[in-house]
Amino acid sequence: MEKGMIYMIPVTLGGEVVNDVIPANVQSIATDLRYFIVENVKSARRFLRKIDREFPIDDCQFFEINRKTEASEIYRYLKPAKEGHNIGVMSDAGCPGVADPGAIIMTMAHEKNIKVQPLVGPSSILLTLMGSGFNGQNFSFSGYLPKERKDRIRAMKNFEADTYRNGTTHLFMDTPFRNMNVLEDLLNELADTTMICIASNLTLVGENIRTMSAKDWREHAYDLAKKPTMFAIGKKQ
Amino acid sequence: MEKGMIYMIPVTLGGEVVNDVIPANVQSIATDLRYFIVENVKSARRFLRKIDREFPIDDCQFFEINRKTEASEIYRYLKPAKEGHNIGVMSDAGCPGVADPGAIIMTMAHEKNIKVQPLVGPSSILLTLMGSGFNGQNFSFSGYLPKERKDRIRAMKNFEADTYRNGTTHLFMDTPFRNMNVLEDLLNELADTTMICIASNLTLVGENIRTMSAKDWREHAYDLAKKPTMFAIGKKQ
Repeated sequence: MEKGMIYMIPVTLGGEVVNDVIPANVQSIATDLRYFIVENVKSARRFLRKIDREFPIDDCQFFEINRKTEASEIYRYLKPAKEGHNIGVMSDAGCPGVADPGAIIMTMAHEKNIKVQPLVGPSSILLTLMGSGFNGQNFSFSGYLPKERKDRIRAMKNFEADTYRNGTTHLFMDTPFRNMNVLEDLLNELADTTMICIASNLTLVGENIRTMSAKDWREHAYDLAKKPTMFAIGKKQ
Repeated sequence: MEKGMIYMIPVTLGGEVVNDVIPANVQSIATDLRYFIVENVKSARRFLRKIDREFPIDDCQFFEINRKTEASEIYRYLKPAKEGHNIGVMSDAGCPGVADPGAIIMTMAHEKNIKVQPLVGPSSILLTLMGSGFNGQNFSFSGYLPKERKDRIRAMKNFEADTYRNGTTHLFMDTPFRNMNVLEDLLNELADTTMICIASNLTLVGENIRTMSAKDWREHAYDLAKKPTMFAIGKKQ
């Protein structure tokens, strides 16, 4: 192991079986560390204990980071790396640095010339893309849809138009309690022939990935409420 | 294990240690299968033997698929699923269905109501995004850059403009023998303050991920020739 570097350590998407989604050597890198910058200390500890029931949590230092954490504070969290210790960065779910405050740690690490290494783990974006059948050579992820219905519909229609024009696959999501509104708008507003992929409960019990035309979805829509879900609009390959 | 479904099975990015990048349970799903649709039979066999030296390759059926494979042929490859057998789809490197002919298999599976399950493995797109420090809530992958220098430069400048305008992270790549041309154009054509991430040899010996301004890259450029490399233009977080 090199010294004084930062590992980006993916965690499960909420599933209980670490071996389903985290490679063995990533687990062993994680449990060799004693310094962690995490989105949530409690869930980080739970993850480490899931890998290794004997993991010495009390010998570790956990720094919590959220969207409000000051830059000066984060610089302080990086100090152990400057002293030769390796640091792990963990998000609440999935891959750190993609949809969480982890990216700013990477930015600071690059500024301070600290070596970074991202490790392999589950990403609902990538799993949806793989399972959708859509164009993977040209795709776009837009995060959460706008909250206002009017803006949400405009966003969807822009995705649809771009898919027809350029063949780009568009992935997006929303908070689980708004999933049914998103579904309703997709089915009401998009053209019959537009292809939609809906991936819910990825890597979890009840996982379901289906790609159908808007027309077919209207007859086979299912309950997405409270289920973590990724949506995609794309072109049939 | 359910019956008659299709697993999207990631393989290494060229590295020799499967446990670095493929979760244990994904390996065990792969070696339980006897039907495979693959980009390259030889590399698929090598991968399965790397997981399990005793893997009974002679009991398996491998169907090779490339960009020229006829749709009717692919439908035939899916027949075992209709007969209750599970099928694995494997690409030459990384995650199937993202930058290979695998997507069309997913499309056909959805049409024929065959269940699909994408599994976790290494993706240079996602690893670059994680390590870049760039915006992961809004990103775009554009595959290979245009071959013509003029078109390539226009594409880069469009990425740069969109990053400044919308904060979007733009990821792209090229064939390894053109990497140095890409680097040259990036450093000549982009503004001093534009942030560029270069990730080469991901998950391999000599892995290197660095994010710097175009200005700093001009002083610290290194040899990318023949190294598998992902480029990104993005906004500092």
